[in-house]
Amino acid sequence: MVDIATRVYNHKWKIDPIVRSLIDTDFYKLLMCQSVFRNKPDTHVTFSLINRSKHIRLAELIDEGELREQLDHIRSLSLSRGESTWLRGNTFYGKRQMFRPDFMEWFEALRLPPYHLEKRDGQYELTFEGRWPEVMLWEIPALAVLMELRSRAVLAPMGRFELQVLYARAMTKLWEKVERLRQLPDLRLADFGTRRRHSFLWQDWCVQAMLEGLGGKFIGTSNCLIAMRREVEAIGTNAHELPMVYTALAEDDAALKRAPYDVLADWQEEHSGNLRIILPDTYGTEGFLRDAPDWLAGWTGIRIDSGDPAKGAETAIRWWQERGEDPRNKLIIFSDGLDVDKIAELSAQFAGRARISFGWGTLMTNDFRDLTPNDALAPFSLVCKAVSADGRPTVKLSDNPNKAMGPADEVARYKRVFGVADQERIEVVV
Amino acid sequence: MVDIATRVYNHKWKIDPIVRSLIDTDFYKLLMCQSVFRNKPDTHVTFSLINRSKHIRLAELIDEGELREQLDHIRSLSLSRGESTWLRGNTFYGKRQMFRPDFMEWFEALRLPPYHLEKRDGQYELTFEGRWPEVMLWEIPALAVLMELRSRAVLAPMGRFELQVLYARAMTKLWEKVERLRQLPDLRLADFGTRRRHSFLWQDWCVQAMLEGLGGKFIGTSNCLIAMRREVEAIGTNAHELPMVYTALAEDDAALKRAPYDVLADWQEEHSGNLRIILPDTYGTEGFLRDAPDWLAGWTGIRIDSGDPAKGAETAIRWWQERGEDPRNKLIIFSDGLDVDKIAELSAQFAGRARISFGWGTLMTNDFRDLTPNDALAPFSLVCKAVSADGRPTVKLSDNPNKAMGPADEVARYKRVFGVADQERIEVVV
Repeated sequence: MVDIATRVYNHKWKIDPIVRSLIDTDFYKLLMCQSVFRNKPDTHVTFSLINRSKHIRLAELIDEGELREQLDHIRSLSLSRGESTWLRGNTFYGKRQMFRPDFMEWFEALRLPPYHLEKRDGQYELTFEGRWPEVMLWEIPALAVLMELRSRAVLAPMGRFELQVLYARAMTKLWEKVERLRQLPDLRLADFGTRRRHSFLWQDWCVQAMLEGLGGKFIGTSNCLIAMRREVEAIGTNAHELPMVYTALAEDDAALKRAPYDVLADWQEEHSGNLRIILPDTYGTEGFLRDAPDWLAGWTGIRIDSGDPAKGAETAIRWWQERGEDPRNKLIIFSDGLDVDKIAELSAQFAGRARISFGWGTLMTNDFRDLTPNDALAPFSLVCKAVSADGRPTVKLSDNPNKAMGPADEVARYKRVFGVADQERIEVVV
Repeated sequence: MVDIATRVYNHKWKIDPIVRSLIDTDFYKLLMCQSVFRNKPDTHVTFSLINRSKHIRLAELIDEGELREQLDHIRSLSLSRGESTWLRGNTFYGKRQMFRPDFMEWFEALRLPPYHLEKRDGQYELTFEGRWPEVMLWEIPALAVLMELRSRAVLAPMGRFELQVLYARAMTKLWEKVERLRQLPDLRLADFGTRRRHSFLWQDWCVQAMLEGLGGKFIGTSNCLIAMRREVEAIGTNAHELPMVYTALAEDDAALKRAPYDVLADWQEEHSGNLRIILPDTYGTEGFLRDAPDWLAGWTGIRIDSGDPAKGAETAIRWWQERGEDPRNKLIIFSDGLDVDKIAELSAQFAGRARISFGWGTLMTNDFRDLTPNDALAPFSLVCKAVSADGRPTVKLSDNPNKAMGPADEVARYKRVFGVADQERIEVVV
């Protein structure tokens, strides 16, 4: 029996919306948004899309009209009653009422601000300007829309069974990873793949497959909508945008040097336990830890998001030891460019030396490598970053010069202030 | 939106029936049935299930109650109006009204006769006794039921995503075959996989995937129900059961020797063109062709169903040449134990020397090899054969002693009468 109403309803949509909910975003964006809403509500920030993989000519693949329709649809979204109830009533990281009533009232009334879109050199220039807590919520949906429109463009000419076999192959590929991952003792792994997913439905499938295949070794997803629907933990803490904006606002070199720690001081006031995770690499991990105040060594853990991950973890372990902390009580979260081999290698290397967990991103939710002719679905490195704050450019150095951002003179100044020497250059795949 | 009515309807079924239509069977069974209905309507025949793969202990895998429910369900089936209309009105092999009105009236009133089921030594003994045109229609549904119940038994403990990945892998496997097959110039290939399919839905998927993936190189399916629903050609001619029963009925050695040709004389009265296909191997291809009447060399083609297929085809080509026929105008149909390698090899070997086509069976519709632990879904060799006619045992020699059937003394007599010498023994996988 055909369900006529469903069929008619489906055909009523003018577009097939990619992002259908304001909580189809990473949990840490909401945590950071609440922090920003409290600490820097009026800072004027510009977010900008940056395609690090210039060979993917997005403006040639993706129709501008379709992109605008998707972005316009996101601007029509507001928090639903059920989503609001979940955010207000759910327990996150063991804490009830993680989101304060004043933040929730603001969020419930929020519509995302306008965007600016232009084509240049085969790429889209997509920017979002406005009050920080508003524009920051564009990052994840904007990335997800571009990634999925690119997927759709590649899939458009394919036949029905060819498509089914493509997904069959992708499912098999993910499941083979699951079968390898479940061999790893004491694995703790979360989905961090929202921003560069192949599509929403595919991410949702991957999360469910991991749930069945990994059981308790799969600890949750960064995606709030999927966490809510699939009843798994929402995972995430904080990101580079906090120190990037704080440092951009600094009035002089001394304030600049202090700013990354100011961020964490603000964070410490709001969060405890497993949410106290240091992200040390924004201006170089070595210098950040060397010059860190003692109270930071008491935090629960660290997230390694650039550079050689094993080296970063060794640095963190040494630092804890120097500050009189036992690394075995500390949590190290790896979240940069992971795939199964690297996860297995890091698991083995740090077993028993610290608590380890993994935030697995693009190669969980978008590994269609070698599944299409010309590898047209291979993932690529698309980011959406805060590029200025109150008119001043932001800077990110990272532990990998290939991930650095900002004007050359400012980068040089930051390197001087933060004492960053030559760094190893590592190819950025995803 | 949940379609409540569909859901309730689905849950009303006491069982999930495997065979849901009397035309979920091979086209050649209906052609032969019509021939038998005209020529030997009152012959009393026994069909019996034979599992050549003794290591598959079907009675331990499959619950007897479930098997009986499925067989009972088949006995409740009768030809639907749409099915009857299709059989009466469709064009088969370029001919309208292939099925005569008297046969259709009989078929419309038919219910399948009772079955006899016992367990012995971990196997099921399943037999069908009665008038030949009735009991012969049990063959395909009985095989399909046993094959699919075995699949279900193996799949029962699997998780939802594990199952989805299993089918993903099977789809990928078939599609890789399609991708190789479409490289073959002048390929003509049909689905002959009903009897040993993994399941009905899987066969239906395979046929649709071949349609999309192979286009005009896929010429149709032996399955009438799928041919009707997917609007492709129904393919098939005749099988060993005709000469097996005709010879069993022979009163003396002279009549025995003549019987296989009598079958084809009857067939020639009814059918022309691409339906005049010789199946020469029932009592040895060499002797059958050597002693054949001249009119048989005028037939359209030959089907190679046992022994080394290249050798069989070479024998046929030589025979046509000896009889003054040009093999390039003849059709050779390969239908025994095919998979892609063998299809490619035979295609290359006989290109330009004869018209070639392939009836691809078990390794199209049931290739789940290496997809489950212990290879629990590997296909196996299950057949359902006429074992006696009017109280006399049937005999099949075939071009492979591993496919021979019948009591030892009768096999010896047939070998003598048909002049069959030592034959090459070839392993029967499917």
